[in-house]
Amino acid sequence: MNTGNSPKPKDRSFWHYLFNADSIAVIGAKETPGTWGHDAMRASVESAKGKAGRKVYAVNPNEKKVLGIKSYKSILDIPGPVELAVIVVPAPVVPEVFRQCAEKKVKAAAIISAGFAEVDGDGARLQEEIEAIARESGIRFVGPNCIGHSNMHSRVASVGFADRIPAGPMALLSQSGTLGASIMQIAASRGIGLSKFVSTGNEADLHLEDYLEYLADDKDTQIIGLYIEGLREGRRFFNLAKEITKHKPIVAVKSGTTEAAAKAAKSHTGTLAGSDAVYSAAFKQAGIIRAEDEEELCDTALCLCNLPLPRGNRVAILTMGGGFGVVTAEVCEKEGLEITELEAQTLRKMKAVLPPRWTPGNPVDLVGIRPAGKDNPGDTCLQLLLEDKNVDAIISLVPPMMFPPQMMAQASPTELKAIQRDIERNQAKLYRQLIEYGKPLVYIRRITISLPKELWDIAARPKAMIPEYNHPRRAARVLRSLAGYRKYLESR
Amino acid sequence: MNTGNSPKPKDRSFWHYLFNADSIAVIGAKETPGTWGHDAMRASVESAKGKAGRKVYAVNPNEKKVLGIKSYKSILDIPGPVELAVIVVPAPVVPEVFRQCAEKKVKAAAIISAGFAEVDGDGARLQEEIEAIARESGIRFVGPNCIGHSNMHSRVASVGFADRIPAGPMALLSQSGTLGASIMQIAASRGIGLSKFVSTGNEADLHLEDYLEYLADDKDTQIIGLYIEGLREGRRFFNLAKEITKHKPIVAVKSGTTEAAAKAAKSHTGTLAGSDAVYSAAFKQAGIIRAEDEEELCDTALCLCNLPLPRGNRVAILTMGGGFGVVTAEVCEKEGLEITELEAQTLRKMKAVLPPRWTPGNPVDLVGIRPAGKDNPGDTCLQLLLEDKNVDAIISLVPPMMFPPQMMAQASPTELKAIQRDIERNQAKLYRQLIEYGKPLVYIRRITISLPKELWDIAARPKAMIPEYNHPRRAARVLRSLAGYRKYLESR
Repeated sequence: MNTGNSPKPKDRSFWHYLFNADSIAVIGAKETPGTWGHDAMRASVESAKGKAGRKVYAVNPNEKKVLGIKSYKSILDIPGPVELAVIVVPAPVVPEVFRQCAEKKVKAAAIISAGFAEVDGDGARLQEEIEAIARESGIRFVGPNCIGHSNMHSRVASVGFADRIPAGPMALLSQSGTLGASIMQIAASRGIGLSKFVSTGNEADLHLEDYLEYLADDKDTQIIGLYIEGLREGRRFFNLAKEITKHKPIVAVKSGTTEAAAKAAKSHTGTLAGSDAVYSAAFKQAGIIRAEDEEELCDTALCLCNLPLPRGNRVAILTMGGGFGVVTAEVCEKEGLEITELEAQTLRKMKAVLPPRWTPGNPVDLVGIRPAGKDNPGDTCLQLLLEDKNVDAIISLVPPMMFPPQMMAQASPTELKAIQRDIERNQAKLYRQLIEYGKPLVYIRRITISLPKELWDIAARPKAMIPEYNHPRRAARVLRSLAGYRKYLESR
Repeated sequence: MNTGNSPKPKDRSFWHYLFNADSIAVIGAKETPGTWGHDAMRASVESAKGKAGRKVYAVNPNEKKVLGIKSYKSILDIPGPVELAVIVVPAPVVPEVFRQCAEKKVKAAAIISAGFAEVDGDGARLQEEIEAIARESGIRFVGPNCIGHSNMHSRVASVGFADRIPAGPMALLSQSGTLGASIMQIAASRGIGLSKFVSTGNEADLHLEDYLEYLADDKDTQIIGLYIEGLREGRRFFNLAKEITKHKPIVAVKSGTTEAAAKAAKSHTGTLAGSDAVYSAAFKQAGIIRAEDEEELCDTALCLCNLPLPRGNRVAILTMGGGFGVVTAEVCEKEGLEITELEAQTLRKMKAVLPPRWTPGNPVDLVGIRPAGKDNPGDTCLQLLLEDKNVDAIISLVPPMMFPPQMMAQASPTELKAIQRDIERNQAKLYRQLIEYGKPLVYIRRITISLPKELWDIAARPKAMIPEYNHPRRAARVLRSLAGYRKYLESR
C-alpha cells in the first residue's frame, strides 16, 4: 500500500544509529527462552560484545533481570541516553512505549511486534498512531511485524541469531522474516558472509526503497540480495536499482505472482504483489538478476562473490560419466546456454591423453577413467578448456580429486594431509587461472557412494573460492544469469 | 537404435541366474583398489555373504589372488559350474572371454567393459561379435558399457557398492551408470530401499523393455524408477507400461530432450533420444509419472511408498511464517494445485485457538506462535485440516515440535528422550490418521538457525513415514504428480 505520505529521510544520521548504535534498549525483553523478547535481548547482549562501551538495557516492568542485566520499568527510567530502541511488546502497547521513546529522544527503532495493518482495521489504526509519533519525533523505524535487523560488521542487531552469521559482502533486504532468516542461513552454510540484514515487515516508516538507497553507498556491501513480495514505491525502486546495478549486482527473488500467493502476501505484510510480467520486464530493464528462489539467490551470490562474469553463453562440460553429460547439456540448453564446439586443437590434445574409447566432443566425457596423481588426464582436459577460445564458462562434474576415492580411503592420515595440501595448491593455482582467463568454473557435487562426503571435503577447494552446486540445473541457471548481467553491463 | 533383431527371451530362467546365481565368476578381477575389476570382485565377494554356498571365482591371468580368492587363468579352469559371469576386461578381449563363457555353459552375464558401439565402427563390430556369441550360446547379458546390476534381496551384484544399498520396494532401471548410482544413493539417504537395479548400458542383448517386462511380475518390486535417454522398442515399452501402471506406479526421468543432449546421449549409449513432445504424450497415456530429475524421482517414490494418493488437487498449507506461506501458495498454483477454501467451521475453530492477530484463510499462518506441549495450537490446526472436506492434501512448514527449539536445546538428555517419545507417539498417531482420512501430508524442512538439524531430527517422525522435502516446490510437484496418477487410475 503506497500511502504516498511516507516521510522521506530528513536526516541521514538515523542510519548511523540504526546500524551502529552505542546504546540499545530492548523494550519487552524477557527471561523466558523461546520468546521474541528473549531473542531480541540476546541479540543486543551479543552486540555489546562487538564494541567496547556499547550499552544494552532491558525494559520490562515484569522482569527484574534479563540475561543478567537489570530490567527497567520504562525506557524513561534508564539513566543514560538510548540511541536505538528494539520493541517487542504486544501491538496495543506499542504506541505507549513508542511515545516514551520519543520523549527519551531515541534516534532509531526496530518494531518487531506484529498485529498491525497486516491484520485488520484496528491494527491499521495502531500503525497510523505509531507513524504519527515517528513523524512528530523524527524517530525512523524498521517494521513493525518483522524479525528485526542487523549489521554483521558492527554487530548491532535486533534479530535473534545475527551473531551466528559471519560478516561478508552481501546485504539482504527481505519482506519476509522467515524467508530472510532462511536465506541468511543458506548463505552462511555456503560460505557467503553478510554485511547488513533488514526484515522490512509492514514498512510503515522505512520502505524497502529507503534501505536500498542507503546500501547503494554502503562500503561494506558489494552485492545486494532481495526477497520481494510487493513494492510500495515501484518507480523509485527501479530508478535506484538501475543506478546501483552499474557497480553492485542486485539479485532478487520476487514471489506472490499467483492469485492465492498474492492474497497471502496481502495478509502477510499488506503489500500488493502486482503483475509478474510487469516485474519481469522492469527487473530486466534495471539489470536486476532474478532468482527463482532463496537457494538460487545464494547460488548466484556465490558466483558473484568469487568469479569473473562469463564473456558469453558458450559452456564446456567436463564429466566422469556419460549420463551426467547428457543431463548437464540438456539443462544448459534449456537455460539458453550454448554447448560450444571445442577448438580442433583442444580435441586433438585431449585425444592424446584419453583412452581410445573416448568420443571427441563437448560434453568432455572422461569415460570412467580414474584420476591418479597431480597431472592426471582430467586436470589436463580442464586446462585445455581454460585455454580454448570457444569456451566462456566451464561446468565440471569431475571432483578435484587426485586419486580414486578407494585409494584415498585407504591412505594414512599423514598421506591424506599431503594429498590435501597438493589439492589445495592445485586449486589455488586453478583459481588464479580462472581470474586470469576471465572464465568462471563451477563444480557439481553429486552424492555418490563411491565418493563419500569426507573425501570430497578433503578434495574441495580452500575457502569455497570455486563454487559448487548439487545439480547441473543450478549451475546452468547461475551461468545464464551472469552471462545476461555481463551483456546488460556492456550494452549500457 | 531399434535394430529390430533383438533376440526375445526364449527361456525365462536366465532371469533367475542373473539375479539369484549360486556361482559367479568375475573375469578381469583385480587386486588394485579403484579399478573396475576390483569393484566388481568386491561386489561378488559381498554377494557371497548373502547366501550360504554361493561360490565366487576370480578370473585374471595376471593376478594370483584377488581379495583373498584364488584367481584362475580362464573361466574354463574353474572346477565347478558358473551360472553368472561378470566381465570387466578391455573391449577387444571381451569376445574371447565371452566365447569361453559359452563353452563353460554360463547362463547369464553382465558386461561392464566399455568401448563398443558407443565409440565407433570398430567398437560396433566388437559388439556385433558378442551379440552373435550370445545368440548361438543362449547366454543373455546386461550391457556392455554399464556399471552392472544387482538384486538387493538375494545380494547378487556386479555393481561395486550394491551392498551399501538397503533392500526395499523400488526397482531402478537406468540408461546411465552414474545417474543410476546417484539415484540409488539419493534413495538410500531418503530411506527408500531398492529391490533390483540394472544399469542397462548399450542394451546389445537385453533391452530396457525386457527388464521392464520382468519387473511387472517381480514380487519384490512395488514401484519402478526409470532413467531413460532413448528407447529401442518404444511401442513395446508403452504397451508394457500401460499394463504395469495399473498396479505398480512407474516414475521416469527422461533426458536428452535438447539438441546437444541428444548428441551426447548418442555417443553415451548409442540411443536416439527422440522428440520430447512425443515422449510426454506417450508417458501421459501410459500413466507413467514423469520426474524432472533424479531428486524428483526419489521425492515421488518417497510419497508413493508411504502415503495414500490425494483424492484431488485441493491443498492446505500450514506455516509458521507468512513468507513461506506466500512462496508455498505460489509454487502450488504454478503446478496446477488449488489453494483450497477451508470450511467455515475449520476457520471458526482455528480462530478459537490462535491469537487475535491471526487472519483466517489458507495458507494457515500460525503468525509466529511458538509451540509448547502436546496439544499446542499447531497440532490443533493440523487436526482441523485433516477433518476439512475441502482438503485433499496438506503441506506443513511447521516442524513436528512440541516445544520451542531453545527450550528443547536447554532440556536435559532425559527430558529430551521423553519429548522424543511423545513426538514419536504423536507422529505415529498422525500417520494412522493420514491413512484413515486418505490424505497425504508432507513436511517442508527448512534450514533455519533457530531450529538446528539435531532438534529437527529429534522431532522428525519415526522411520520417515511422513515424507519431508527441503523446498515447497518439491512438495508441490510430487502432490501434483500423485493427484494426476490417481485421476489416471480412476479414468481407466
